[in-house]
Amino acid sequence: MTAKNAFYAQSGGVTSVINASACGVIETARQHPDKIGKVYAGRNGIIGALTEDLIDTSQESAEAIAALRYTPAGAFGSCRFKLKGLDQSKAEYERLIEVFKAHNIGYFFYNGGGDSQDTSHKVSQIGEKLGYPITCIGIPKTVDNDLPITDTCPGFGSVAKYVAVSIREANFDVVSMAKTSTKVFVMEVMGRHAGWIAAAGGLATEEEGDGPHIILFPEISLDEEKFLARVDECVKKYGYCSIVVSEGVKNADGKFLSDAGTKDAFGHVQLGGVAPVIANLIKGKLGYKYHWAVADYLQRAARHIASKTDVDQAYAVGKAAVEFALAGKNAIMPAIVRKSSNPYQWEIGTANLADVANVEKKMPRDFITEDGLHITPACREYLQPLIAGEDYPPFVNGLPQYVKLKNIAVPKLLSTSFDLKV
Amino acid sequence: MTAKNAFYAQSGGVTSVINASACGVIETARQHPDKIGKVYAGRNGIIGALTEDLIDTSQESAEAIAALRYTPAGAFGSCRFKLKGLDQSKAEYERLIEVFKAHNIGYFFYNGGGDSQDTSHKVSQIGEKLGYPITCIGIPKTVDNDLPITDTCPGFGSVAKYVAVSIREANFDVVSMAKTSTKVFVMEVMGRHAGWIAAAGGLATEEEGDGPHIILFPEISLDEEKFLARVDECVKKYGYCSIVVSEGVKNADGKFLSDAGTKDAFGHVQLGGVAPVIANLIKGKLGYKYHWAVADYLQRAARHIASKTDVDQAYAVGKAAVEFALAGKNAIMPAIVRKSSNPYQWEIGTANLADVANVEKKMPRDFITEDGLHITPACREYLQPLIAGEDYPPFVNGLPQYVKLKNIAVPKLLSTSFDLKV
Repeated sequence: MTAKNAFYAQSGGVTSVINASACGVIETARQHPDKIGKVYAGRNGIIGALTEDLIDTSQESAEAIAALRYTPAGAFGSCRFKLKGLDQSKAEYERLIEVFKAHNIGYFFYNGGGDSQDTSHKVSQIGEKLGYPITCIGIPKTVDNDLPITDTCPGFGSVAKYVAVSIREANFDVVSMAKTSTKVFVMEVMGRHAGWIAAAGGLATEEEGDGPHIILFPEISLDEEKFLARVDECVKKYGYCSIVVSEGVKNADGKFLSDAGTKDAFGHVQLGGVAPVIANLIKGKLGYKYHWAVADYLQRAARHIASKTDVDQAYAVGKAAVEFALAGKNAIMPAIVRKSSNPYQWEIGTANLADVANVEKKMPRDFITEDGLHITPACREYLQPLIAGEDYPPFVNGLPQYVKLKNIAVPKLLSTSFDLKV
Repeated sequence: MTAKNAFYAQSGGVTSVINASACGVIETARQHPDKIGKVYAGRNGIIGALTEDLIDTSQESAEAIAALRYTPAGAFGSCRFKLKGLDQSKAEYERLIEVFKAHNIGYFFYNGGGDSQDTSHKVSQIGEKLGYPITCIGIPKTVDNDLPITDTCPGFGSVAKYVAVSIREANFDVVSMAKTSTKVFVMEVMGRHAGWIAAAGGLATEEEGDGPHIILFPEISLDEEKFLARVDECVKKYGYCSIVVSEGVKNADGKFLSDAGTKDAFGHVQLGGVAPVIANLIKGKLGYKYHWAVADYLQRAARHIASKTDVDQAYAVGKAAVEFALAGKNAIMPAIVRKSSNPYQWEIGTANLADVANVEKKMPRDFITEDGLHITPACREYLQPLIAGEDYPPFVNGLPQYVKLKNIAVPKLLSTSFDLKV
């Protein structure tokens, strides 16, 4: 049997460590030339497979591939494109098979979050349903930390660290200005449906009085009165109030606060930005001077302050994906299994893609304090090891030196094309 | 002659390295117990002097003072409070003398930006005008980099590094998503009147196609048509467009864009946030999907990614301030003198406070490209050494360990109080 080639793609929102998973996949595949030929990456994710736009990673040096470990974002391009079910969109799957067959692809590694693992799961079925044998392994990735089964999702720990470090630093700033200036600081973070990222801000609170004093989760609808009373209490007690708010926080009617009214000069509803909404609410009701920040992509791209735990796990799931494939496993995803929190010990296990697809893991209620405004010790115990350790990229002239790959296309072998309808 | 005590205060917006200057002052003063008694810090800046609320820094251990070198923000509290002229507000100066006399203070070290150096200058005149001899040394600090004479201002280099690193990382993110998602990214940075911080984002551009593709400066009023044409060109040419915008950018009528129209649900003009205004403009005119970030305090508090050059210079100006005072100099400010850019060499010189007060150094026109949308090679040569080198704080459990001082008050000796009218 000649070695089959592998297809690897990055999917959905990128993270500061998804390339570390790519590094794990490619470095491990290179150690098994007898079983895996070349690793072809999809240019812009699964779109690259559908359009036969494959990147030949064998043209990248060992140094360049090693540099992926410390380079943020998606080195091959990612996409937001979800395959429909086999019944609704058979043409897409037939096209995948056409491309895979043409390029002798026998392994499919798909690096993404919930939607992407749904895609992995669907692709894993084409062996049986469409008669094309392919080994299909999902690789977990999402800053939202909302995949089931795996203890955490690579990408999350680094965002968590960024948020905890940033709010700690901002707290030092605000407390030193509060006497005559800013008394309220609001930092908006990602997490449309799950409050894991916002929760991470809570790690900065170590002693009585430390900010953030309030965390607003998407899981808890905003009780304006209780919230404002707490803001006022903090300003009076600690001199300032520091708030981390998830972009997905909702009001009592279940509407996103970020959609709840801010309009621009033309009367258009302004998209995004719950921090200014919260800040204006406080200013309007309590009169305190505020500042607000929206970290947006900075938080999930911040490789310079990545968590070493997270980088190690991102690499490990990539490596394990290849090892599982070589061991003949299929339709699974490497999962992080926590053996103990203190000292932190973890290992790689497996999750069935069927069990991962379309399941969203929200914050357990007992990770949020009874008043809904902060995290509990149980949450802290869960989160703490995930931000542990630093893993600085190399710097030259004051700037991190991230790698840009050559991304040389594999020559097309098909005369057919495919209409993506994106 | 018995040793006189020294007064040190932090003033105005804090930075990630102003405590490094405090460290330089206190460590150097401690080496000269024959000439300088205790260093008393003003709690919340000059307010601490006016209200006789002094902090006894001699009660802090050598370790705690050393830790100031890597602790962001103002360890003794800062304030936004400007002394009026001696003619308009003689009572304030007489109060200062009353407090200084009571606590045997013979040295006045004032760590701040333009307004603060104006205050330093005024205080330096009380020896002659009000008959109280005091040695008065200003210590430069401002993220805005707008003080004259000194080549750069401690605090700026670290913000510059934060901005350049952050926009580089965000660019990697956006370029990997642009095929099917975000095509325009807008990052808002500080700098109400001078574009130095926005300019620093330009350091991330090293090769053709690298973002940021556009920088909007407060010195150049926004030409909407030209700007939008350039955004469109970048998206078509590079697949995405990355923009750094100064909070102080103005429209053709000279109005701040951030004030130019966004209203909340109650019809209030929304304060701050030029990034969403720019993003909405692009969405409205060109239709591109966008994301935006407002770093706000995160940028000036980000000690975790401070510039080593900046930390060294912040410490050096604090140290020099004490040395100049001991050498009998008065009414001056240590200034950073650039000897050469490549290799970067600098030394400490002096500036007369009279020449520093109330002068604002804006970006020279030849630091901005002719089209007004990026930086020139001359600007790059100036900025590059200022972000060079990393100087990471110690981390424990994944978080930077910044020091909180005991800040023990010096017992009050006066029976009088002072009405601040803040």
